[in-house]
Amino acid sequence: MGEIVHAAVLAVGDELLNGGVSDTNTARIALALEPLGVELLFSLTVRDRVEEISQGISHALSKVPLLFVCGGIGPTSDDVTREAVAQALNLPLELSQEAWESIEKRLKERSIPVRDGHKKQAMIPRGAIPLPNSAGSAWGALVEMEGRVLVLLPGVPKELSPMLERALELLPPHLRGGERIMVCLRSFGLPESEIDQKLQPIWERGRVALGLRVISPRHTEVRLSGSPKAVEEALGVAISLLGEAVYSTKGESLEEVLGRLLVEQEKTIATAESCTGGMISHTVTNVPGSSRYMIQALVTYSNEAKEQLLGVSRQTLVDHGAVSPQTAEEMVRGLRRVSGADCCAAVTGIAGPGGGTPEKPVGLVYAGFFVDERCWVREYRFSGTRMEIKTLTTMSVLNELRLELKGRGGEVLSKG
Amino acid sequence: MGEIVHAAVLAVGDELLNGGVSDTNTARIALALEPLGVELLFSLTVRDRVEEISQGISHALSKVPLLFVCGGIGPTSDDVTREAVAQALNLPLELSQEAWESIEKRLKERSIPVRDGHKKQAMIPRGAIPLPNSAGSAWGALVEMEGRVLVLLPGVPKELSPMLERALELLPPHLRGGERIMVCLRSFGLPESEIDQKLQPIWERGRVALGLRVISPRHTEVRLSGSPKAVEEALGVAISLLGEAVYSTKGESLEEVLGRLLVEQEKTIATAESCTGGMISHTVTNVPGSSRYMIQALVTYSNEAKEQLLGVSRQTLVDHGAVSPQTAEEMVRGLRRVSGADCCAAVTGIAGPGGGTPEKPVGLVYAGFFVDERCWVREYRFSGTRMEIKTLTTMSVLNELRLELKGRGGEVLSKG
Repeated sequence: MGEIVHAAVLAVGDELLNGGVSDTNTARIALALEPLGVELLFSLTVRDRVEEISQGISHALSKVPLLFVCGGIGPTSDDVTREAVAQALNLPLELSQEAWESIEKRLKERSIPVRDGHKKQAMIPRGAIPLPNSAGSAWGALVEMEGRVLVLLPGVPKELSPMLERALELLPPHLRGGERIMVCLRSFGLPESEIDQKLQPIWERGRVALGLRVISPRHTEVRLSGSPKAVEEALGVAISLLGEAVYSTKGESLEEVLGRLLVEQEKTIATAESCTGGMISHTVTNVPGSSRYMIQALVTYSNEAKEQLLGVSRQTLVDHGAVSPQTAEEMVRGLRRVSGADCCAAVTGIAGPGGGTPEKPVGLVYAGFFVDERCWVREYRFSGTRMEIKTLTTMSVLNELRLELKGRGGEVLSKG
Repeated sequence: MGEIVHAAVLAVGDELLNGGVSDTNTARIALALEPLGVELLFSLTVRDRVEEISQGISHALSKVPLLFVCGGIGPTSDDVTREAVAQALNLPLELSQEAWESIEKRLKERSIPVRDGHKKQAMIPRGAIPLPNSAGSAWGALVEMEGRVLVLLPGVPKELSPMLERALELLPPHLRGGERIMVCLRSFGLPESEIDQKLQPIWERGRVALGLRVISPRHTEVRLSGSPKAVEEALGVAISLLGEAVYSTKGESLEEVLGRLLVEQEKTIATAESCTGGMISHTVTNVPGSSRYMIQALVTYSNEAKEQLLGVSRQTLVDHGAVSPQTAEEMVRGLRRVSGADCCAAVTGIAGPGGGTPEKPVGLVYAGFFVDERCWVREYRFSGTRMEIKTLTTMSVLNELRLELKGRGGEVLSKG
């Protein structure tokens, strides 16, 4: 897996510890470090207090040779990270003329009167390399001391990102690890525990690092990282173990994959939704350019709407109920007539928490599909909250369409 | 404001340090601790390694008397937090019969075969109080040792939240601060910076702690905490300063507030959506029991669907374009005819990132409303990503309907 260099993040800010906001810079920095063979060992979040920040820096630098300190370098009185860095490293702060001239110019352009606080933003530890801020006025710094490096960055993500890039170019060679890559494999349909078990051979082999993340129920991302050769090999094994549940190895969403298939096959899509309330079409249309294939969606929440908009017969609704394979099939056949779309999907079910019966419990969902000349119905029995059942239904429908377009025949469960 | 107790969070998971996901549990825990007079001093994130987790626990408990350890308690091989807790506290793990019976039952209900890994999820340190997991199968635990408390929780937010609530009920009295209450005031329509400025009198008064959180663009939560008397007073001031932008002081969502108004007034609702692609109806139907008022939604993505389903005239589409006040009005009038709903809303706009022109840029949205006998059209000019524009449109439409049902007259901008 090549030599690994360890790094850490120190995130500074009261707002990160009082529920105001979550730290997203750790993930941002981790992704930027991955191709350099540098891994985060830990991330520590502290309040805007000189002592607490300074102790955090000393603690971190006793464990790792590379530390990213983010936040608390602005002009206001609670911005005290610069002082804390100076204290922890025992280096005085000095005004960077280059930084100060640039900050003055920026303030002038924006007609903001210069205040004492602004000068703070040009102060960096003696001997540090100043890091210009293209999206704000707080300059950062890269400090190297006895082979260890501290990178001082702002907390605002859009200011941090370009400065981080610049800092990584300045890293000394001994703080770069061996060549590594990371691949994300996304799957839908299998529970996390089953995926974990199926991937045991890769765990046991131990040649790549393996991480699982649940995106939503039965919707999982597997991350493989290590040397390019080991990752490529493990990826092949993982795909053969997980089979058709894998929908992407490039970090795409399921709706993006479905959209790509529709565009490639020049097909259009339409949906009729009851229990999902529009979530399927909302998800399909999250993809930019989806107007190329999305024609329409009908959210037929009431029985009247199912009759009026989709031509579901009253007799079917009375005899079998709104949540039945018969209704799902009539819905999708009606949708095909109304929309003329190549791919039609219709769902009817009980999202809960109310409305369930012993015979038709919460989580029972029927989905009708009509793709080209084939029409079929699937029964699902989900469990979870209202939102989970809506999400499971939505993702199951998109996945069924993906599999169908990829050429696998859907099993015919009902023929109305 | 009472005596303050300090606590810390230890977030566990490779995915939090390799860029897979950001830790949101720290913010969640901070919010839950606020009313108890407990403040987070720091938050530490470590990888799924027994040694690193165990060292993190020992370090944290040397600094604070209350520690929340989140993540790594599931069934898979990389879930090693339980062992690390046992090691750090020097307590053996024991099977909780109560937990194991509940997990077995849960697996059975879901027809998931029982595996060795599942049993791990019922193991807790000797003497700990088991914390049931209502949304998953990994049980947590609360361990008290020499006046210090460690709370072991899962990393999945929806599993963590109810377990955290239960754990806080079990906290010993010496780990609770002075009596404090917290009120959340939610508003839609004002930018965060404007809210911050409007609330200056409350900041300056300094009798309550004030926190702002952006839920989505122009959608903000203001948290006031302190003594009951001070909070009540500040709440009155905040409501008068923010005016009708405030939609809830009870933590309800905008769709819940709208749903309540519809039920109280025995009104029904229908939507016709273009650029939002179903997000409005998806949001309305996230509220349990929304079938009482939601009749139908038509997602008319193509021009043909706008003509066919809503009776928008081709001439209007040709003369003014699909994104125009004229089309929005014809859409909502058509929706009223088709659905017969009391409250109708129709939107057409450009969600981007493509499809904009200098005359009709990305973010231009027209919304037509027809409530009881009044019909009007609003023009919005939003900016942001595709998802932000969809979200801003959705929330603006729900908010306009809320204001209308509350009795404020919407200004008539266009009469077609």
